[in-house]
Amino acid sequence: MIELFLIGIGTGNPKHLTREATEAIRATDLILIPRKGPGKDDLAGLRRRICQEVITGDTPQLREFDLPKRDTANPDYRAGVDDWHDAIARVWAAEIRAGLPRGAGKVGFLVWGDPSLYDSTLRIAERVTAALPLALQVIPGITSIQALTAGHAIPLNRIGAPVTITTGRRLRDHGWPEGAETVVVMLDAGCAFDVLEPEGIEIWWSAYAGMAEELRLSGPLAEIAPRIAATRARARADHGWIMDIYLMRRRAPA
Amino acid sequence: MIELFLIGIGTGNPKHLTREATEAIRATDLILIPRKGPGKDDLAGLRRRICQEVITGDTPQLREFDLPKRDTANPDYRAGVDDWHDAIARVWAAEIRAGLPRGAGKVGFLVWGDPSLYDSTLRIAERVTAALPLALQVIPGITSIQALTAGHAIPLNRIGAPVTITTGRRLRDHGWPEGAETVVVMLDAGCAFDVLEPEGIEIWWSAYAGMAEELRLSGPLAEIAPRIAATRARARADHGWIMDIYLMRRRAPA
Repeated sequence: MIELFLIGIGTGNPKHLTREATEAIRATDLILIPRKGPGKDDLAGLRRRICQEVITGDTPQLREFDLPKRDTANPDYRAGVDDWHDAIARVWAAEIRAGLPRGAGKVGFLVWGDPSLYDSTLRIAERVTAALPLALQVIPGITSIQALTAGHAIPLNRIGAPVTITTGRRLRDHGWPEGAETVVVMLDAGCAFDVLEPEGIEIWWSAYAGMAEELRLSGPLAEIAPRIAATRARARADHGWIMDIYLMRRRAPA
Repeated sequence: MIELFLIGIGTGNPKHLTREATEAIRATDLILIPRKGPGKDDLAGLRRRICQEVITGDTPQLREFDLPKRDTANPDYRAGVDDWHDAIARVWAAEIRAGLPRGAGKVGFLVWGDPSLYDSTLRIAERVTAALPLALQVIPGITSIQALTAGHAIPLNRIGAPVTITTGRRLRDHGWPEGAETVVVMLDAGCAFDVLEPEGIEIWWSAYAGMAEELRLSGPLAEIAPRIAATRARARADHGWIMDIYLMRRRAPA
């Protein structure tokens, strides 16, 4: 019997780790650490660092593997992602078999933020179970949404009001979500808020939310958008990568 | 100089506590613990228990106080909440002055879940600063949304798709949010999903999400709604209180 633990580790601050996550890491026999390739391994480094801080004995074994690459040439985005997830699931199954040669034990996978939120790990784990039966358990982690609101010391919602979480791609393609007052945007490849008419919109923006490098800007969108664009471009050049998130509010629809 | 730490503690599982939260509690001089009155103090009990587990030395001092009651007779809901928050802020300021007689130090307040999400603590802290200048810091915590999705081992969003977080009151008054595919409902006084045409909607429901008493039900809304209603009523009678949350998905609008 193989148990798979998907463990939310928060957003890059090792202090985001919960006691439940710490105990889950220590209780596993094997931790899988994916490598994305040169220049993209800040996340593998963070996973290694968290394991080093948390692991006190001989187990778990850390097992690193190269993540397959997504075929970005596939014109059908969803089909490309499907194929990619299948390929990743095959690699996971092979690594689990190699790391647990007796076909039993506990495997852990550390997930940036929380496994529920714009993350493919749960979907990959489901595909793995097709080839290799396993019991799945999810350990929640701090998401970048909480890191964003904590950094700015703001509520997510207005009193009793709803919140829409969406992606940069959707904001760019569909504009402000129908009926929304508060919108959180994740996975934005770059300043999708530029498609909005900024009048009456306030924005709270963080890059590297929760990490030592955290950057924050906030104010009326009309005024602050160019500063966000410039800060983002500079930070991306300095670090070689960027992960940002923002919350926008506008006056309630009449 | 007074520093106020609003510390997210997760949803009732003491293992939800992050290392950042643990260190913040230990670094304070004073922790404020509100009492809601007989029969409603599971939360005060949880706060006490977390402090007992975490605190190793003589500090912080734990200071309990009776929370003012909201005037539920006020026909203007928003004005009633405003007055109530003012009253709570006055009590906080008095307790902080009494607990930090030299007018300096670190005060902590433990917040169920995360301080950003359908929680009044940030708004009360803002009112306190009007009477008593203080520096505010927010420590993120696991929300009941993550506890819900972890318990059911499901993603929050469909791939690349948006999510709407709303309240039971809004669902009841306005129905399914415009344009939404995935809806998370919090603060539901009781089965607001009954207002929906259930055809094509799936639901994942948890009560006491993250706690030892956690209950979970999921399936097609048409089929599972009566079971949720019955389970909820029984659990509420058994425990004297209930806190539940649910996620619903329906087919993407055409």
